[in-house]
Amino acid sequence: MAEKYVYTFGDGKAEGKGNMKELLGGKGANLAEMNLIGVPVPAGFTITTEVCTLYNQQGRDAVVELIKSQVERGVAETEKAMNAVFGSTGEGFPLLLSVRSGARASMPGMMNTVLNLGMNDATVKIIAEKSNNPRFAYDSYRRFIQMFGDVVMGVEAEKGEHDPFEVAMDKIKESKGYTSDTDFTAEDMMQLVEDFKTVVKERTGNEFPENPWEQLWGSVMAVFDSWNTERAILYRQLNNIPDEWGTAVNVQAMVYGNMGETSATGVAFTRDAATGEDIFNGEYLVNAQGEDVVAGVRTPQEITIEGSKRWAANQSISEDDRKNKFPSLEEVMPTVFAELNEVQQKLENHYRDMQDLEFTIQDGKLWMLQTRNGKRTGAAMVRMAIEMLDQGLIDEKTALMRIEPNKLDELLHPVFDQQAIKSANTLTKGLPASPGAATGKIVFFADEAEEWAGRGEKVILVRLETSPEDLRGMNVAEGILTARGGMTSHAAVVARGMGKCCVSGAGEIKVSYAQKSVVIGGKTYQEGDWISLNGSTGEVYDGKVATVDPELSGNFGKIMELAEKTTRMSVRTNADTPHDAQVARKFGAKGIGLCRTEHMFFEGERIWAMREMILANDLEGRRKALEKLLVMQREDFEGILEAMDGYGVTIRLLDPPLHEFTPNEPEAQEEMAQKLGVSVDVVKSKVDNLHEFNPMLGHRGCRLGNTYPEISEMQARAIIEAACILKAKGKDPRPEIMVPLVGTVEELKLQNEIIRETAEKVFEEKGIRVDYLVGTMIEIPRAALTADKIAEVAEFFSFGTNDLTQMGFGYSRDDAGKFLPIYLNKGILKHDPFQVLDQDGIGQLVEMGTVKGRSANPKLKVGICGEHGGEPSSVEFCHRVGMDYVSCSPFRVPIARIAAAQANNR
Amino acid sequence: MAEKYVYTFGDGKAEGKGNMKELLGGKGANLAEMNLIGVPVPAGFTITTEVCTLYNQQGRDAVVELIKSQVERGVAETEKAMNAVFGSTGEGFPLLLSVRSGARASMPGMMNTVLNLGMNDATVKIIAEKSNNPRFAYDSYRRFIQMFGDVVMGVEAEKGEHDPFEVAMDKIKESKGYTSDTDFTAEDMMQLVEDFKTVVKERTGNEFPENPWEQLWGSVMAVFDSWNTERAILYRQLNNIPDEWGTAVNVQAMVYGNMGETSATGVAFTRDAATGEDIFNGEYLVNAQGEDVVAGVRTPQEITIEGSKRWAANQSISEDDRKNKFPSLEEVMPTVFAELNEVQQKLENHYRDMQDLEFTIQDGKLWMLQTRNGKRTGAAMVRMAIEMLDQGLIDEKTALMRIEPNKLDELLHPVFDQQAIKSANTLTKGLPASPGAATGKIVFFADEAEEWAGRGEKVILVRLETSPEDLRGMNVAEGILTARGGMTSHAAVVARGMGKCCVSGAGEIKVSYAQKSVVIGGKTYQEGDWISLNGSTGEVYDGKVATVDPELSGNFGKIMELAEKTTRMSVRTNADTPHDAQVARKFGAKGIGLCRTEHMFFEGERIWAMREMILANDLEGRRKALEKLLVMQREDFEGILEAMDGYGVTIRLLDPPLHEFTPNEPEAQEEMAQKLGVSVDVVKSKVDNLHEFNPMLGHRGCRLGNTYPEISEMQARAIIEAACILKAKGKDPRPEIMVPLVGTVEELKLQNEIIRETAEKVFEEKGIRVDYLVGTMIEIPRAALTADKIAEVAEFFSFGTNDLTQMGFGYSRDDAGKFLPIYLNKGILKHDPFQVLDQDGIGQLVEMGTVKGRSANPKLKVGICGEHGGEPSSVEFCHRVGMDYVSCSPFRVPIARIAAAQANNR
Repeated sequence: MAEKYVYTFGDGKAEGKGNMKELLGGKGANLAEMNLIGVPVPAGFTITTEVCTLYNQQGRDAVVELIKSQVERGVAETEKAMNAVFGSTGEGFPLLLSVRSGARASMPGMMNTVLNLGMNDATVKIIAEKSNNPRFAYDSYRRFIQMFGDVVMGVEAEKGEHDPFEVAMDKIKESKGYTSDTDFTAEDMMQLVEDFKTVVKERTGNEFPENPWEQLWGSVMAVFDSWNTERAILYRQLNNIPDEWGTAVNVQAMVYGNMGETSATGVAFTRDAATGEDIFNGEYLVNAQGEDVVAGVRTPQEITIEGSKRWAANQSISEDDRKNKFPSLEEVMPTVFAELNEVQQKLENHYRDMQDLEFTIQDGKLWMLQTRNGKRTGAAMVRMAIEMLDQGLIDEKTALMRIEPNKLDELLHPVFDQQAIKSANTLTKGLPASPGAATGKIVFFADEAEEWAGRGEKVILVRLETSPEDLRGMNVAEGILTARGGMTSHAAVVARGMGKCCVSGAGEIKVSYAQKSVVIGGKTYQEGDWISLNGSTGEVYDGKVATVDPELSGNFGKIMELAEKTTRMSVRTNADTPHDAQVARKFGAKGIGLCRTEHMFFEGERIWAMREMILANDLEGRRKALEKLLVMQREDFEGILEAMDGYGVTIRLLDPPLHEFTPNEPEAQEEMAQKLGVSVDVVKSKVDNLHEFNPMLGHRGCRLGNTYPEISEMQARAIIEAACILKAKGKDPRPEIMVPLVGTVEELKLQNEIIRETAEKVFEEKGIRVDYLVGTMIEIPRAALTADKIAEVAEFFSFGTNDLTQMGFGYSRDDAGKFLPIYLNKGILKHDPFQVLDQDGIGQLVEMGTVKGRSANPKLKVGICGEHGGEPSSVEFCHRVGMDYVSCSPFRVPIARIAAAQANNR
Repeated sequence: MAEKYVYTFGDGKAEGKGNMKELLGGKGANLAEMNLIGVPVPAGFTITTEVCTLYNQQGRDAVVELIKSQVERGVAETEKAMNAVFGSTGEGFPLLLSVRSGARASMPGMMNTVLNLGMNDATVKIIAEKSNNPRFAYDSYRRFIQMFGDVVMGVEAEKGEHDPFEVAMDKIKESKGYTSDTDFTAEDMMQLVEDFKTVVKERTGNEFPENPWEQLWGSVMAVFDSWNTERAILYRQLNNIPDEWGTAVNVQAMVYGNMGETSATGVAFTRDAATGEDIFNGEYLVNAQGEDVVAGVRTPQEITIEGSKRWAANQSISEDDRKNKFPSLEEVMPTVFAELNEVQQKLENHYRDMQDLEFTIQDGKLWMLQTRNGKRTGAAMVRMAIEMLDQGLIDEKTALMRIEPNKLDELLHPVFDQQAIKSANTLTKGLPASPGAATGKIVFFADEAEEWAGRGEKVILVRLETSPEDLRGMNVAEGILTARGGMTSHAAVVARGMGKCCVSGAGEIKVSYAQKSVVIGGKTYQEGDWISLNGSTGEVYDGKVATVDPELSGNFGKIMELAEKTTRMSVRTNADTPHDAQVARKFGAKGIGLCRTEHMFFEGERIWAMREMILANDLEGRRKALEKLLVMQREDFEGILEAMDGYGVTIRLLDPPLHEFTPNEPEAQEEMAQKLGVSVDVVKSKVDNLHEFNPMLGHRGCRLGNTYPEISEMQARAIIEAACILKAKGKDPRPEIMVPLVGTVEELKLQNEIIRETAEKVFEEKGIRVDYLVGTMIEIPRAALTADKIAEVAEFFSFGTNDLTQMGFGYSRDDAGKFLPIYLNKGILKHDPFQVLDQDGIGQLVEMGTVKGRSANPKLKVGICGEHGGEPSSVEFCHRVGMDYVSCSPFRVPIARIAAAQANNR
């Protein structure tokens, strides 16, 4: 017996079913499934993906021979189910078909489609007559010629030329003085049919085929061909879809919502996609085609009475006007609506998720054209998952897996008021560097930001770019706008850490520090003028736009509880201040994975002690300056350890090169000279001396601690003293001291000695002991390669995947903006490796480091503290590698928690 | 039976032998061996290394108990052989002993020694009497007290204090008005003995032990203790000597060359250590101790008549004067000399290598104190290896293995005339950045160097630091001196590539470009003044010092032939010009492993075409500028491919970031604007735009070729056109096109497509085809990690270990000077990883890259083109990893060839 290559469906029956996606593709399987559960779907049949493979191997003729009789049977079944005749010459209503692709995975917009197939000079007349709508019939016919000519026969505009079909339409428009396609009459459409046929003949040398079978075979093969277009191949590469899968072809009867006043078309959602509310909703139009609903030419109407009333209230439309001009489907076609309502419930119950439906009513009969899981906002996603769980529709694991972790971000930051934003005026668009909404008065300098904020003003800090000296200003601002810098610029990284709205790299704005003004979107703003930022989209708005604070609703909490129950990895946070630590703890962080101590050196008077140390010529001088820093650092650590009481706090020793602490501008150098009582030449020569060609690969990290051991000693003392003070108060401080930028075990050995010796001294002085760990950041490729050696000394590893990515790829984050966008665009990279961990390459180092590290020290605690610690696919990787925890910025903690739980449930 | 812990030797007998180094240490085994072959050696015994291990585990008492009787037997045997009595109280001549360490590997100066052991108030009197030389006796006694007090009893100067023994001596000197130690009388020495005993008592609280056995045991244990001093441990770490080896202790009878006119002491070499000539030579002094020969107080005399005559001629001393004042040992003690001559021949024949001997003649009797393989110059090394091979003393493999590859460097560069250098005045010392000697007139600018050299002047280019713009100036200079930059600075790397003498990082010199002057060693030099550089030592000399060109003697050629016969890996060169290629070919290079194309862009007018391209706003503009470069590059490649005709030439596509081609100084920017007909603002803004924070990790390598494919296209065209032109002339060009800085296979894929498409076009245009390869540099860690993927496209890999080291370690070569010296000093690093490949870490990437690459493409050709390709231990590693070739700068080719051959013979 011949193998089965064609699966029919229709009239409540189907030869395939929902779980046959490999063979029938997603769409085909779904069409079959809908039939089986009694949803009215236009009949048709699916040609399997195997045929696509055979087509690629053996070509058209072999395939036609193989499946000819099966396709003919499919058409016959379709005719029966739809009570129509393919290529009718008069006896029955002509059956028109759509031919669509349908691969195992969705490839939206990549593949070919042909509609209205079966139209020819004979059938069009019957349809014109039977539908009593000649314009509709000839419009459908000319559309078919255009589509078929384009997709199957290869009519193409030549370089610099307009589309020849459009040219033909324009000619008529011009001669008749029409302004819109809707002005065309039935006669015009008839003329167009002739003109389009001429175009086809002229362009291809072939006649447009009147024979519907010829039309059908041509269309089926065109769909197979579209599997191998360049853009389809690129799309598959980017989305990891194997070329061997192939596409199925779905041939299905056409139905029309534009056949008169008893026809209609619409879209609907089984729940509210914006809020998640469990309420059926959607829009429809009478006597219209699908595209009319979304095109905005006519105002679509609500399908339910309740929805219609809400809408009218919102638009300030009276109930009478509403009933007369914008009645709901429930009112206009109550019987059909009841059937639709039943169908939507059936579909949601069947698929156990919110469905996005397309339907058409042809001459009073409801047809479902599509159902799929609906897109939703973050808030709706959470609400639906919890409510469906409560309704018993899904189980806990399913509810958890329904959460797209990244979407939680929407719930955690202020957003613009929905009404206010509608009337806002967009000035320009930068990069969405750190999500949230912000509105405030423009200031240009960090100290002015502090000053203004100090007197209660809301400010937006506008800069060409930010530097560590701007930290305090950024901290008090509502949001930050920069002209330069990418998604990983200083401004972006720091703002994300603070959970603060930031738009970076808004290249079009022109900042003048001298005049304290900025030109945005052609308009000049002075200091004190209001602007607003959307850090989630990168948009910059004129003036003040009201914002709304996030409400972490009960459903959010419930989802987090679900995650907590089934997770293996814990989630820590990257935090440098007690405030950040508290925020993160509220979001469920269990400890700090990275506390950067250098940020503490920039604040206020501290920078002067730091600079004094840098200028010192000898150990004595450095120790004197370090004494001052010791006092301040101890206080910092007390605050942070207290905020995370009972949880581990990983404190990284000084990391950045010393030149980050010295000023480059002549005035600032003079100030420094005066303040520290030395000549400007001394300052200048020190600054020159500290200059580096590649600071990223320079004198930083533990290279500082190993050339100036007194710095590590001071920091170790500050940490241990702080811990002792807290313990004496009955607290439970758990410091974990992290040595940065270790590349050889010898570096760690020397630092470890300093730390342990210092700790012993402090314990003796204080008469109290605290437990602490000493470990290292694995951020240099060589550290991962020699992790077994390093783990002989380290008690923990924390993968610094930011630097590991910089060095592993040889990409400077500050400079990669010049080629990364091009690389992403050309498909050289699938993701920005600073956002999504490169599992193929850098991941090898992470895995190697973990495995080698544990081989030498089975008790080794392993975590990650790069930006990747808050990125879901990277979190999943960390789980797979066997890490103990991930650490991310406070506002990413909930995202990481969900991702970690999901990883454990896969 | 008790285990044997003590091995005696003496009187032509020995219980151990030469191959027992593990048990007896190097020295002990050698002493035994010399006895066995009939060389007169003072008798004694060796305590085995096992005892050291037992001492470390069980302590002194256990060890003494274990070996007491064996040591007593050793002393008794020694007494018998030497006809002397240990601790004699009158009946016999007292036996005095030396106690020395002797580990398996030499640890010069690291361990303790005690001499003249056995001296006490009783024996000193007997010796004074029997030797008839009380001053000698008491001098030896006080030296013993000093040494024993220091080494065994722990007498130490306190902080800030002078050595207390020296203080005691100074007191006598002062009171007697002596100027030198030689002024001391026998009575003074007696006084010193008393004073020294007082010092011991005061400092240690203990009496100096008169009992010789107590002296002996204390000294033996002190030697064991010195195995575990901090410096010894550090030395072992640095030299990979296991702590478990332990040291043996050699107890040996003392002999004295200072017992009168029939005593003497000397050192000798079986061949000439400077030239390699097969002639016995050495120096001696009558009535002297070993240290007198080297101290320079008395003029040592030659041992042979021939040597003595040569010396006298050199010193312009008449034959009469010579005979009277400086007679040879051959003349003074003909019998002893004859015995010595016999011994030296015996030793060289036995050890089959040039021996460095120490001997003492005590009262007319010859004693050999030490023999070891002698140190030698590079020239001597080569001559001896070949002559010993010719003499049948060693076989070919041994001759080959005798060559220390790095020492060949001495033979390949000009050196200073031996006479001239003696009177030269050293001004300062920088880093020995590139070997050789150079003398010339100071110039400060590259264009002036060209101008001066053009009119036949010899010039030394003196700069703060060099940049690619200085290349032509460096090329015509005799040598380069820079104030800044380390061993891997631009100046150093380029100079080594050119085989040109360079002293870099001479931090003390002060360069003033404005005044065209430089202060060196306190003296101001103007443009045109003469200085001289020794690039092998870093020394800078005042004025003109004559140099001598290297002579690549026949022996050098013979050694190279030996290497050629037994090597597996071939050696290529890194060369950017036909001249360099020819030089390297003469040295035996078989192809070019790295031809950097960017150097070609800096020369003369070319920089302007390059800058025009950089300034161009669009593809058209860039193509126009590239057209100009195409013509010039094609010529370059013709020259290079022709110079290496028949061998593979790996040409790397453009690598450095574009900002290296644009000027930073305002004047130069103005010149550029004028020359290219744009405003200065345009130039400035382009320069600003190209600025990078970490250029090392920026927009360079194939990131340029993938954002501006037209550059790769132009270069591919230039290479293939050049090859076609040569092939048409009957030549055999073999271009291998190398894509730099690949981190993902996709980058290489795109470049590969461009190259292959361009090549096909050229072949069609020219009507001729040439074979060529397309491959990549593996210099980014991620490339090594994903080498299997990359090898699916690449036909060859060339490891760029310079960048791989930079990124793998996270060290910027330009900045590492701030911490690398400290790291080397503290033992964090054993070698500068830019000079010696880090096999533990970076080596993993190299091995992984090779293995993974070959797994995907078994025909993959693999080589290395970093600086490491000319460093012997790294070359050996490359051989082990299975590379096909190494590539290094032309002047390192012979070194690499020897290293490669030796690797294959290990």
